[in-house]
Amino acid sequence: MMVRIGQGYDLHRLEDGLPLIIGGVRIDSAKGSVAHSDGDVLLHALADALYGAVADGDIGYHFPPSNPDYRNLNSAVILKHAVNLTREKGFSISNIDCTVVLQKPILRPYMNDIIGKIAELCSIPSEAVSVKAKTKEGVDSTGKGEAIEAFSSVLIYRS
Amino acid sequence: MMVRIGQGYDLHRLEDGLPLIIGGVRIDSAKGSVAHSDGDVLLHALADALYGAVADGDIGYHFPPSNPDYRNLNSAVILKHAVNLTREKGFSISNIDCTVVLQKPILRPYMNDIIGKIAELCSIPSEAVSVKAKTKEGVDSTGKGEAIEAFSSVLIYRS
Amino acid sequence: MMVRIGQGYDLHRLEDGLPLIIGGVRIDSAKGSVAHSDGDVLLHALADALYGAVADGDIGYHFPPSNPDYRNLNSAVILKHAVNLTREKGFSISNIDCTVVLQKPILRPYMNDIIGKIAELCSIPSEAVSVKAKTKEGVDSTGKGEAIEAFSSVLIYRS
Ligand SMILES: [Zn+2]
Ligand SMILES: [Zn+2]
Ligand SMILES: [Zn+2]
Repeated sequence: MMVRIGQGYDLHRLEDGLPLIIGGVRIDSAKGSVAHSDGDVLLHALADALYGAVADGDIGYHFPPSNPDYRNLNSAVILKHAVNLTREKGFSISNIDCTVVLQKPILRPYMNDIIGKIAELCSIPSEAVSVKAKTKEGVDSTGKGEAIEAFSSVLIYRS
Repeated sequence: MMVRIGQGYDLHRLEDGLPLIIGGVRIDSAKGSVAHSDGDVLLHALADALYGAVADGDIGYHFPPSNPDYRNLNSAVILKHAVNLTREKGFSISNIDCTVVLQKPILRPYMNDIIGKIAELCSIPSEAVSVKAKTKEGVDSTGKGEAIEAFSSVLIYRS
Repeated sequence: MMVRIGQGYDLHRLEDGLPLIIGGVRIDSAKGSVAHSDGDVLLHALADALYGAVADGDIGYHFPPSNPDYRNLNSAVILKHAVNLTREKGFSISNIDCTVVLQKPILRPYMNDIIGKIAELCSIPSEAVSVKAKTKEGVDSTGKGEAIEAFSSVLIYRS
């Protein structure tokens, strides 16, 4: 068995009046992500972890922000591209573990939906997906509610 | 063999006159963690990595800070809960690797004690535990000595 | 098969007129890393990930900055030390995945060189190495162009 690791990190600035979408789920929030795409920090970090695990570029390489076709892009398209690339190279996803760092709102009420959505997009059971939430205790841009961050780790394998 | 990955991140603000506990070890420091529990950033990041590896919630889910029972909680209780959950699901810990980001003091003199304590709490040999230390070079809240951060990675397996 | 995980994090302040070296490759940039060594944030994060995977200290332990011998040290020496330690303990590197967080310049034009250099230093095929790039969207020290950060993940195995 060949096992490979992938990691992803993403950050978006938050501004009043924009939609906040995390893991494909719309969050009820006064602030949302500033982005060319839909600004889904969690799906971006996860797609980058898959690109990294198969050593095939990153989001900026596959979906250059300079390309106007990718304005307001649904991040599910990005994640599906990364999942398909992983499959085409003969790998299966063992599991996914992520952390979203956001001062507010509390994400717990959305967590099952977020996990279910990621499992669906990756075609894996929800038992293989974990999303955890942290605040940044009021410090730095994320703590002050001016940004959102996500870390993602994946393990993939080929028999 | 089934292998799974887990990751954890934690941050606490530091204030004068509070105790600083890292990996269950009391550190001689003018500042300590602001927290509901004992504020052990390293054990928190590690427990979250285990919860993530088995895809079963996070610290905030298992030990809600709103619950007054968890005030001043010894973080060893949290880590042991996460370790037991991992075991109950049939997994063993392959290894643990962590990074503590703290401007001062230097953690090197405490490192063997910290690693020994984590190994003991996880019931694994100390050869399976790594804790590394970084400063943040004076930048952002952690660099200015106003916060402490920890990153944790774990690999677990089931035969 | 025994599989182990390692993680590394590094940050350096950036200042005008200093050289910027990432993954052993000189980057054309007005600012460069403030450091005792050559300040290669990516090779440092990667060396720490290997030290962590084999649970044998960290860069600060093996190359103490207080030792004047390590002034202006070529970070390739540090990474090679970590790779040799990994080999001596009987482990092979399955794969490496890293993220460099830098506001500017864009690293894409340098990526193949960086990946090739890391593969060479680790004596592994470039298909086993991934380096991704992110900006920090203008926030915090890294976003303001005052610092550079790197995250590294490795998976090692022993048959
Ligand atoms: Zn993004
Ligand atoms: Zn904590
Ligand atoms: Zn460094």
